[in-house]
Amino acid sequence: MKTKTMSKSILAVLGGTALTGASLTAQAFDVLPTKAPEPADNHGTAAKIALGKQLYFEPRLSLDGTVSCNSCHNLMASGTDNKSTSAGVAGKHGGRSAPTVWNSAFLSVQFWDGRANTLEDQAKGPILNPVEMAMPSEKAVIKRLQQIPGYVSQFKAVFGADGLTLDNIAKAIAAFERTLLTPNAPVDRYVKGDKQALSKQAQRGMQTFSEVGCTACHSGVNYAGPEMPVGTGFYQTFPVFDSPYVAKYDLKADKGRYEATHDKSDMHMWRVPSLRNVALTAPYFHNGEVKTLDEAVRVMAKSQLDKTLSDKQVADIVAFLEGLTGEFPAMEMPRLPETAGRSMVD
Amino acid sequence: MKTKTMSKSILAVLGGTALTGASLTAQAFDVLPTKAPEPADNHGTAAKIALGKQLYFEPRLSLDGTVSCNSCHNLMASGTDNKSTSAGVAGKHGGRSAPTVWNSAFLSVQFWDGRANTLEDQAKGPILNPVEMAMPSEKAVIKRLQQIPGYVSQFKAVFGADGLTLDNIAKAIAAFERTLLTPNAPVDRYVKGDKQALSKQAQRGMQTFSEVGCTACHSGVNYAGPEMPVGTGFYQTFPVFDSPYVAKYDLKADKGRYEATHDKSDMHMWRVPSLRNVALTAPYFHNGEVKTLDEAVRVMAKSQLDKTLSDKQVADIVAFLEGLTGEFPAMEMPRLPETAGRSMVD
Repeated sequence: MKTKTMSKSILAVLGGTALTGASLTAQAFDVLPTKAPEPADNHGTAAKIALGKQLYFEPRLSLDGTVSCNSCHNLMASGTDNKSTSAGVAGKHGGRSAPTVWNSAFLSVQFWDGRANTLEDQAKGPILNPVEMAMPSEKAVIKRLQQIPGYVSQFKAVFGADGLTLDNIAKAIAAFERTLLTPNAPVDRYVKGDKQALSKQAQRGMQTFSEVGCTACHSGVNYAGPEMPVGTGFYQTFPVFDSPYVAKYDLKADKGRYEATHDKSDMHMWRVPSLRNVALTAPYFHNGEVKTLDEAVRVMAKSQLDKTLSDKQVADIVAFLEGLTGEFPAMEMPRLPETAGRSMVD
Repeated sequence: MKTKTMSKSILAVLGGTALTGASLTAQAFDVLPTKAPEPADNHGTAAKIALGKQLYFEPRLSLDGTVSCNSCHNLMASGTDNKSTSAGVAGKHGGRSAPTVWNSAFLSVQFWDGRANTLEDQAKGPILNPVEMAMPSEKAVIKRLQQIPGYVSQFKAVFGADGLTLDNIAKAIAAFERTLLTPNAPVDRYVKGDKQALSKQAQRGMQTFSEVGCTACHSGVNYAGPEMPVGTGFYQTFPVFDSPYVAKYDLKADKGRYEATHDKSDMHMWRVPSLRNVALTAPYFHNGEVKTLDEAVRVMAKSQLDKTLSDKQVADIVAFLEGLTGEFPAMEMPRLPETAGRSMVD
């Protein structure tokens, strides 16, 4: 199955059909499950999740001990840093905007360009990325954690005697990330039958969102496309249609999935991002150049559907999208394991 | 009262008197109270503490939205970053090692050089410091937070209609910091009568700690000197005695309190730091040049008391100091107030 082909055909079908809001509601608006799927080889036990939580907040996983997963994917905020691009060690910056980690367990591929198949694969990327956490090698990561007795004992308990490996670091982090869900968004409650959960404006926006064709891509439990097998991405070209937005927001400087595959058919292809909590994750798009949600809606309608929305339509859709902000669970801070009488990073 | 004079006279008295461990125990080893003192004009209500907790974890209080109080005073670790000097915005570094925030409510002055009288005064420093959070002005700080509705409403509820000011930001943070206590350290339990709380080695170390004269300065509830009125520092010259350590660890490059006062009598004077949780706060001293606790003990004995300790004495004192690691309370993560559909920092 060629995913790219499939997604394009969905777009074509929906773009050419005047479906009613009612029929689309049933098909395109799915409720977020309260539990994320997990791979057979990485069951999330309580001990593994607790270890992953510590690692998620662990700045000693970065070269100079200043950057943790949470630095750019801040769980106390929206699961991102609300910056166009993120700051790694020593003031370095990456090239793309940090996507939210909340509900990422429901994405079938990870990163903007889908270059990681799983959360496990993803978690290893930033640790070794020279402009992010900048650890020089897998060996250096292991050597760092081997000096922290509280990690050595936990890896042994969770993964066995030889358990302190980069793969297991990633497994623990991924197991924790699968707990990061924001259920019961107003839209979810509305879809489940609570007609008071959305304002009239948000309901109108939901209808408009369907009618103009946004649901062609932003469907499914994560509003990031239909359910796909893990490792199979739901990609789209962005931008499809030319407009002044392309130059204004520099939308084509980054070649998207092509940068990962060097396959010409992947030029400017991107994994369709989730819209859950999108009202909290400004700025928008892969380069974070679009600062507000209303402008992001305008850009998307023009660039993907060649439609120019009225201000009222934009405001309605924004009201609907605000209804995708879910409930963020209360979380206890982890305690990071100590190294008595010495530090490991300088 | 000249504090500096007083501290020196205590040193002289204790240095010249062969007090027994028993009499010193009563006088020098105080238990950490379960509640910190608070100023009359800043009572820590639940709402104020909750606001202060959000602000403590708030990266939007920094110029580029990447650094919060917690970045360098990490509550999930030891209340510091375990680095010689800390990283501020854009990879900049300060000149001194971040002290732990835990139990700082019991210090009568703040910062290594005592240049802030209160936690309230201290909290404003890093926000405006160009190599830390680097906000350009008080006005810029207020303008930033005014754009976050969840802060506007909380400041109004806690401080009244005109409540969003830098002074009130500092008050809320200070109120939160006064809750950051680590009671029931093994040494506290030992002092209260639980003779099983410390190993024989730690008990020997406690005795040695007294006999060699460490208690001359490291006394009181915070092991940072006798109780002093707020704003009155308990300072000491460091190093007092010359030794190869001075060059090895560059101990005199920083002029200490002199840098703040430009008073020659403050040359190389430092606020006596707390020893609570000292086993977790490596590296050591104002410049973080000493990497391990055992070496820090050697350096202190030589530099302050002109004594060369045996390896056994050092190991005993380290065992005692490890007994000053207290109980870190479980804490829920705050949720940082959102800005729907837009970000404030880029």
